[in-house]
Amino acid sequence: MSRIFNFASGPAVLPLPVLEKARDEMLDFAGSGMSIMEMSHRGKIFDAIIKAAEDNFRRLMGISADYAVLFLPGGASQQFAMIPLNLLPPGRSADFVDTGAWAGKAIKEAGIVGKTNVIWSGRAGNYMSAPAPSELDFDPAAAYAYICSNETIGGVRFAEFPEPPSPLVADMSSDIMSRVIEVGRFGLIFAGAQKNLGPSGLAAVIIRRDLAERVPATTNLFFRYRTHMPEPSLFNTPNTWAIYIFKLVTDWVAENGGVSAMQKRNEEKAGRLYQVLDASPFWRPCADRASRSIMNVAWRLADPGLEDKFVKEAKAAGMDGLRGHRSVGGLRASLYNAFPPEGVTALIDFMREFERRNG
Amino acid sequence: MSRIFNFASGPAVLPLPVLEKARDEMLDFAGSGMSIMEMSHRGKIFDAIIKAAEDNFRRLMGISADYAVLFLPGGASQQFAMIPLNLLPPGRSADFVDTGAWAGKAIKEAGIVGKTNVIWSGRAGNYMSAPAPSELDFDPAAAYAYICSNETIGGVRFAEFPEPPSPLVADMSSDIMSRVIEVGRFGLIFAGAQKNLGPSGLAAVIIRRDLAERVPATTNLFFRYRTHMPEPSLFNTPNTWAIYIFKLVTDWVAENGGVSAMQKRNEEKAGRLYQVLDASPFWRPCADRASRSIMNVAWRLADPGLEDKFVKEAKAAGMDGLRGHRSVGGLRASLYNAFPPEGVTALIDFMREFERRNG
Repeated sequence: MSRIFNFASGPAVLPLPVLEKARDEMLDFAGSGMSIMEMSHRGKIFDAIIKAAEDNFRRLMGISADYAVLFLPGGASQQFAMIPLNLLPPGRSADFVDTGAWAGKAIKEAGIVGKTNVIWSGRAGNYMSAPAPSELDFDPAAAYAYICSNETIGGVRFAEFPEPPSPLVADMSSDIMSRVIEVGRFGLIFAGAQKNLGPSGLAAVIIRRDLAERVPATTNLFFRYRTHMPEPSLFNTPNTWAIYIFKLVTDWVAENGGVSAMQKRNEEKAGRLYQVLDASPFWRPCADRASRSIMNVAWRLADPGLEDKFVKEAKAAGMDGLRGHRSVGGLRASLYNAFPPEGVTALIDFMREFERRNG
Repeated sequence: MSRIFNFASGPAVLPLPVLEKARDEMLDFAGSGMSIMEMSHRGKIFDAIIKAAEDNFRRLMGISADYAVLFLPGGASQQFAMIPLNLLPPGRSADFVDTGAWAGKAIKEAGIVGKTNVIWSGRAGNYMSAPAPSELDFDPAAAYAYICSNETIGGVRFAEFPEPPSPLVADMSSDIMSRVIEVGRFGLIFAGAQKNLGPSGLAAVIIRRDLAERVPATTNLFFRYRTHMPEPSLFNTPNTWAIYIFKLVTDWVAENGGVSAMQKRNEEKAGRLYQVLDASPFWRPCADRASRSIMNVAWRLADPGLEDKFVKEAKAAGMDGLRGHRSVGGLRASLYNAFPPEGVTALIDFMREFERRNG
């Protein structure tokens, strides 16, 4: 058994202690004689797990009682549809900031439900930046304002969040719990779990309770946030395995200093990599400097013909997942919370050696 | 480590070899240096897993190329909404057979989308039977006809399936792959995975391809079956862990003789238990004889005051999950594919002893 350095953009690396615990508890969770996967979501054991998962999340992110925390199926793509089905009533419109592929998907789904107003787009700049708050002109009459806090493909993030007059909705799939944020500034935050929170097949949703009351009567019960609130996330059988892993991941974050410690570690990891990319014209970092993500670092080689070689040799050296998204090519290192600093050191050493041999 | 006999109605017992394999592969799947949970759903390794999962399912169930197989988020409850959003266009109605709580939930969600026509209800009989095909009078103009093949709460199933003039849609969450069926008689079959297929958080959907084309333009992209068909189940990041376990479970079914062998084993397990229930007035089996489920066996005690004692003593003897659904009380043994025959023997021995001491 030898673990590699996994730079995948998601599903992504999990903390090793989480995997070890999941392995050790697989056949017999805490003397129950069952796996977590085999037990009722309404039993005492799972009840303690889902409550601990929510408590961890609330404590780590500073989520007040004004907000419900829900564990819903399907990841971010399902939320792209659920959000307008809940928050965009007939006759209203919602503001969108188009920072890339993920914001684009959300705009497309919302457009099926109601009127979308794209107030800023990075398309002309190939989605290599996110706007500063001062660049955004929100509609005060909008039902909500939508952003994607971090776009994984270009490696672009909001360094600062805007303060729109309408409730701010944010897709934080790729940077949740990676930096300290003020939840009270948002109406709804959601994240597919498979980057910083656990495995795929789960979305964590943080919603200001009053917003859940807006849902039109034409929306299916299952797709109403309100339906899932009275007994949180137990209206149906939830993804119990993913919630269990979420609980272990948030335990691990808490044991390792919480979100502020994660942020410091993430800034240090990404900072060291950007330093190498900035130091030589051999490398071409993609994102505008002010919008650089600390989760996904994307770059090209001055000679793109060397990129395949880079990916292949890196893989042979125990570093996987470095190929850029198929829509843009190039290289990308995803450095989520669970990605170890030693992996960045290994990558940097490899890059210096690669440049020496090919520069 | 000691495994108990787990009679839970779902999430439910999994085959021990599946859990052992999942445990052994947790930190390093097949020399990749990663867990299955940590890798891209678009990489070679997961591609082989999802293809094997679909191939297993097609071979075991005899699913022809006229049908798409999809792995979707959220279990059966999400399908209750997705089915009418795809198959019930404005101005049409759908026929429903109301056999209990699960059919009832599907009727409620469909009623939000369009017109529902309940052509038979077991409500007056406390949902203790399913109709014979001859009892059903379908509307030839219906968009589809909907049944739940097995109701877990009353322990009631369709012994024979009807042949409506419109496409037959069946919730087989609790008996899929437990008995041989002819897929070609159905328009759409779906199942939450957490009983016979794997963990919770996944629905397997078998849909006749032409039906997916009916979807109205007002349905969100994510909730259209058609969206998930071109690259099966990879429109978004699917629940990779659940698909991996599904693959292992279907491997296990194939290695153990396939669905016909499962059916024989299931009939034998349930048959032995019903024999005990029929042999003494101490026990009161719930379902009408002609509708008895081989997956969920529900019964009362002649003296209901003894039921708590039964559950408690059974648990102490290593048998868990025997309490009936909170809506009806009593006792229930769920005997899904993975439930071992030895567990039925243990239960029967315990029941005889319990009757001797309390009868």
